[in-house]
Amino acid sequence: MSVVVRNPPRVEAALAEAFAGFGVATVHEAQGRTGLLSSYMRPIYRPAHIAGAAVTCEVAPGDNWMIHVAVEQCRPGDILVVTPTSPCEDGYFGDLLATSLQARGVKGLIIDAGVRDIATLAEMGFPVWSKAVYAQGTVKETIANVNVPVVCAGALVHPGDLIVADDDGVVVVPRNSAAGVLEKARAREANEEGKRAILASGVLGLDLYKMRERLAEKGLTYIDAPADD
Amino acid sequence: MSVVVRNPPRVEAALAEAFAGFGVATVHEAQGRTGLLSSYMRPIYRPAHIAGAAVTCEVAPGDNWMIHVAVEQCRPGDILVVTPTSPCEDGYFGDLLATSLQARGVKGLIIDAGVRDIATLAEMGFPVWSKAVYAQGTVKETIANVNVPVVCAGALVHPGDLIVADDDGVVVVPRNSAAGVLEKARAREANEEGKRAILASGVLGLDLYKMRERLAEKGLTYIDAPADD
Amino acid sequence: MSVVVRNPPRVEAALAEAFAGFGVATVHEAQGRTGLLSSYMRPIYRPAHIAGAAVTCEVAPGDNWMIHVAVEQCRPGDILVVTPTSPCEDGYFGDLLATSLQARGVKGLIIDAGVRDIATLAEMGFPVWSKAVYAQGTVKETIANVNVPVVCAGALVHPGDLIVADDDGVVVVPRNSAAGVLEKARAREANEEGKRAILASGVLGLDLYKMRERLAEKGLTYIDAPADD
Amino acid sequence: MSVVVRNPPRVEAALAEAFAGFGVATVHEAQGRTGLLSSYMRPIYRPAHIAGAAVTCEVAPGDNWMIHVAVEQCRPGDILVVTPTSPCEDGYFGDLLATSLQARGVKGLIIDAGVRDIATLAEMGFPVWSKAVYAQGTVKETIANVNVPVVCAGALVHPGDLIVADDDGVVVVPRNSAAGVLEKARAREANEEGKRAILASGVLGLDLYKMRERLAEKGLTYIDAPADD
Amino acid sequence: MSVVVRNPPRVEAALAEAFAGFGVATVHEAQGRTGLLSSYMRPIYRPAHIAGAAVTCEVAPGDNWMIHVAVEQCRPGDILVVTPTSPCEDGYFGDLLATSLQARGVKGLIIDAGVRDIATLAEMGFPVWSKAVYAQGTVKETIANVNVPVVCAGALVHPGDLIVADDDGVVVVPRNSAAGVLEKARAREANEEGKRAILASGVLGLDLYKMRERLAEKGLTYIDAPADD
Amino acid sequence: MSVVVRNPPRVEAALAEAFAGFGVATVHEAQGRTGLLSSYMRPIYRPAHIAGAAVTCEVAPGDNWMIHVAVEQCRPGDILVVTPTSPCEDGYFGDLLATSLQARGVKGLIIDAGVRDIATLAEMGFPVWSKAVYAQGTVKETIANVNVPVVCAGALVHPGDLIVADDDGVVVVPRNSAAGVLEKARAREANEEGKRAILASGVLGLDLYKMRERLAEKGLTYIDAPADD
Repeated sequence: MSVVVRNPPRVEAALAEAFAGFGVATVHEAQGRTGLLSSYMRPIYRPAHIAGAAVTCEVAPGDNWMIHVAVEQCRPGDILVVTPTSPCEDGYFGDLLATSLQARGVKGLIIDAGVRDIATLAEMGFPVWSKAVYAQGTVKETIANVNVPVVCAGALVHPGDLIVADDDGVVVVPRNSAAGVLEKARAREANEEGKRAILASGVLGLDLYKMRERLAEKGLTYIDAPADD
Repeated sequence: MSVVVRNPPRVEAALAEAFAGFGVATVHEAQGRTGLLSSYMRPIYRPAHIAGAAVTCEVAPGDNWMIHVAVEQCRPGDILVVTPTSPCEDGYFGDLLATSLQARGVKGLIIDAGVRDIATLAEMGFPVWSKAVYAQGTVKETIANVNVPVVCAGALVHPGDLIVADDDGVVVVPRNSAAGVLEKARAREANEEGKRAILASGVLGLDLYKMRERLAEKGLTYIDAPADD
Repeated sequence: MSVVVRNPPRVEAALAEAFAGFGVATVHEAQGRTGLLSSYMRPIYRPAHIAGAAVTCEVAPGDNWMIHVAVEQCRPGDILVVTPTSPCEDGYFGDLLATSLQARGVKGLIIDAGVRDIATLAEMGFPVWSKAVYAQGTVKETIANVNVPVVCAGALVHPGDLIVADDDGVVVVPRNSAAGVLEKARAREANEEGKRAILASGVLGLDLYKMRERLAEKGLTYIDAPADD
Repeated sequence: MSVVVRNPPRVEAALAEAFAGFGVATVHEAQGRTGLLSSYMRPIYRPAHIAGAAVTCEVAPGDNWMIHVAVEQCRPGDILVVTPTSPCEDGYFGDLLATSLQARGVKGLIIDAGVRDIATLAEMGFPVWSKAVYAQGTVKETIANVNVPVVCAGALVHPGDLIVADDDGVVVVPRNSAAGVLEKARAREANEEGKRAILASGVLGLDLYKMRERLAEKGLTYIDAPADD
Repeated sequence: MSVVVRNPPRVEAALAEAFAGFGVATVHEAQGRTGLLSSYMRPIYRPAHIAGAAVTCEVAPGDNWMIHVAVEQCRPGDILVVTPTSPCEDGYFGDLLATSLQARGVKGLIIDAGVRDIATLAEMGFPVWSKAVYAQGTVKETIANVNVPVVCAGALVHPGDLIVADDDGVVVVPRNSAAGVLEKARAREANEEGKRAILASGVLGLDLYKMRERLAEKGLTYIDAPADD
Repeated sequence: MSVVVRNPPRVEAALAEAFAGFGVATVHEAQGRTGLLSSYMRPIYRPAHIAGAAVTCEVAPGDNWMIHVAVEQCRPGDILVVTPTSPCEDGYFGDLLATSLQARGVKGLIIDAGVRDIATLAEMGFPVWSKAVYAQGTVKETIANVNVPVVCAGALVHPGDLIVADDDGVVVVPRNSAAGVLEKARAREANEEGKRAILASGVLGLDLYKMRERLAEKGLTYIDAPADD
């Protein structure tokens, strides 16, 4: 049986917005180095940086019917997360679907498959992170689920979870962890600001992070290169 | 025996020009979802969009000799389509060959292999769709065929066929089908213009395409998410 | 035992600088078509073009500790070359390490693994050629070697060797060969300038390179296409 | 914080045993075409066919420490499921670990990474499904979690879930669904037995499954080949 | 419009049979080094060696309906050649379809996609060359063409063409060339028999093929290794 | 200039023979986890296990001429190591070349490219580790070097180095290190024998290797699963 789950609880909009200032790498670190989608998920244009609540959508291989169903479940600030039920690089999504999503205030698309019309999507300012760019069309024959937990590009995503995406890739934060992760991201960023200034002044990470002793304990040995021949 | 076929009939120039306004996705749809080259064929810069008649060229792995032969067979408005006789990512093509092709009015290159000098090619405004970017040089020892039917990146291309390439990839249209495909592309585009405006106004695809009944017949079920915990 | 070799002899700075005007393809040709790193090594932004002396650095999979060690070994004009001891696409390097390297006058990074914070790296103007873009963090537990010979993306790199990197990829020139290769690169470039003008005027490579006779000897046959049906 | 969860509830042993007679394809169909691990998960020898309860184990890239921890959590009839926290093909597992697992009655290993000593593993009759065969050794520096939910080769696995693996690959069945899936697998198998005999007698699937009418409705057209030229 | 072409002319059965004694490498050489399918097409068990006439079948991604249609078009001695209209690794084919094909005297399957039930197929002695082994099930919703020319794994196959497959892979021979290719394959094989005996006696290929002079002309230089240090 | 280096010093035959009893994983560990070729190097049949001195051979893409040259440089007990100057999967090597090598007492082939005639090679008992199996033929036009240092599948190999290959893959041991590595391999193997017996008796690695304290220091926490629901 295929279901569409209406109105799943979402990460709060204000909370999601607050993440827009933090990069994917920072968020990933702030939640204990978890939640990254595969490195093959790349933005169709750069720079791009969004944060919002996930609406999840399964699609059959070569069949984009459920994306049309999922559009209706999207609200302003959401990010649509699409995953095929078996690997497929077809162009499930193009400028007409993007027009619909943009009309609903959706911030972008994460799709573990292909996308097309990317020149138009770039003009529209509708960002997409995808596995492939491929003009191949799809059919509308097979149904699947909307707003159920999915594995997308190797990461588990529940509907309503927070998605952050930038030029580095895509990360998912479980809805109930988002507030705590935000706090840690802020702390991390503040801490890095200070480090950045120190490192820019020429202080070495070896000294700033006090690594020399532990490296020596591990047995790291410094030798001089032989005189040039 | 290796042959060079001179003056194969080409898709008419005016007809090819008329395709320049249509994207690869549209043309692919207009001809019944056929003719796409593999999704690994990517432009070296974006945006890029060309349409023209194919001059086909086989090359041995690591050997670009036949490209020099093929240059002479090119006319203004043509697109050179190069395919290795076994998979190879070497840099078969660089700025000197591009200079020759540009001097002959050739619009671009489609190559199921590698290309190099891409910074210069971008400055020259000579677009290339390739499998790889790789500086690896090639030799000139082995001959092959020019202007015979070839399989390029998974698609069958006859000399004189229409090639359309844009940021989404590359599509081939058989020469004798081009006029009919153009007509369908125009109809599709006109139809999509109308849909785009409707969708932008917030009408759902579910309603515009009257999908609800058929989805229900398939058994799609809507449920409300449980109250948040 | 893991070692850090201090002060390996480097290709002379002036010599390295002189290579900045030559593309990777030209350098690769000038040294007899050797020294290229794999075609999967791509720049994080384009255009980018650097030349400098290699500081080599091994890292364990998922562990960037040795990059911190390698930073101290870098001098102005160097290029850091990082290779994992087994294949890994984690994001070993981000904006803080780039800040350190930039403070030391390092020109860029070549890494057969992943990189992150690429939007910031682009803003900083710190170029990186990498196998992947991936936000995945790394640990600091396992030591390895700095400034020993390494195989990076399929090419053997000794510390102090010359590295040239541009939009086409990355090439390594053994330190003691650099002067000779520079001379050949200059000769090649001069020769190509002349050819470029001739080819732009419409002269065919077939004639410029006197290929017709040898092609005929190989058995290449020209035939006319059958009249169009 | 890294945790080891002791004694997670497991699919009942008798229930798991009952699955040993059903292939992965059958089980996958019986649970609605879900639960398959990626097609790159291949057995190190064939034929091999096991069913048992999952003990899940995360490992850091290039670090097999947690497998030693996981061994202790295994009971007779279990199957160890190992997944790296970022992609890695190192040889995390060899004959010594297999000896330990075999001593505890573990049926086999599923690992989204590399394995080594495969000739010895084959002699021991200890089956492994892996992403790679690679002799590369690993370190013991970084901890992670045992018996928490993991994504392994694209599929979500909870500790105690049922794993079935054969020459076709690997499938996971949620613990609480196993009884129902078994029933459906039996029904499916019985049904297929009957079909197999009918098809072997030469009856066509087109007729057995009554497909002709629906194909005609879709517009499928039969034509005769032109007479041979 | 989708069509099924009935009774396309096939390579003669006796001619096809005669090819069963020749390996794929020999046949590929005998027809001028053309016609090979991609190297990712691997047999599900080894050794396996078949030759027969192609029945071609397109399938939609994740949809095996047309294979059921194609079965009816198969005759004794045929080989079914299946290609998806966009790349897909799903398990389109299993033991029930194999039972049908075996009942009709079909020799084997070539499929640029996935296959399942491979343990049973091996027991049945029904050979398959495929891109993947994957248990993923498919639907029956979308029609396509049977017995039209297709590109399968990079090679153009017309219905009725000769297919030869063995442990090295798969080659296609155009129907009307088959007699000529057979003659050349026989000549090649005879010639190789003689060479094999000579080479086994220790005569070098350098001498047997008289390569020394041409190597010297190319500039090959022999030097002695420096004395061991 | 291309050279053939005659009579490079080789690892002693008796020393090489002594390695035949040690697996690739053991040798790799014994030399400090270095020297492995990429995991894509797979044997054409299993089991297979050889050890011998490397004769190195570069080949141009799609061109196997230099293998014929290299054959003459081989002595009994050698292993031929072939690497293309740019990536290529063509079938450089088949049964005739194997006949020559076997006549000279060569133990096997390591090739970072394709091989063909594998059914015959298996019958002959001539083992090959390769990147691909592919029937694609090659030409004889371009020369390269024999017995110079090469990078093969990511590992640096000098002529005369020791090669060990088994079902796990391939490892190279520098010639002058071989004696020391052998000693360590023996020690390791002896040590593992003892461990194997202890582990088989049910003692845990956690206890045998005294890991519990260090795991606790790292913060590993054991918790009991919640009672089953």
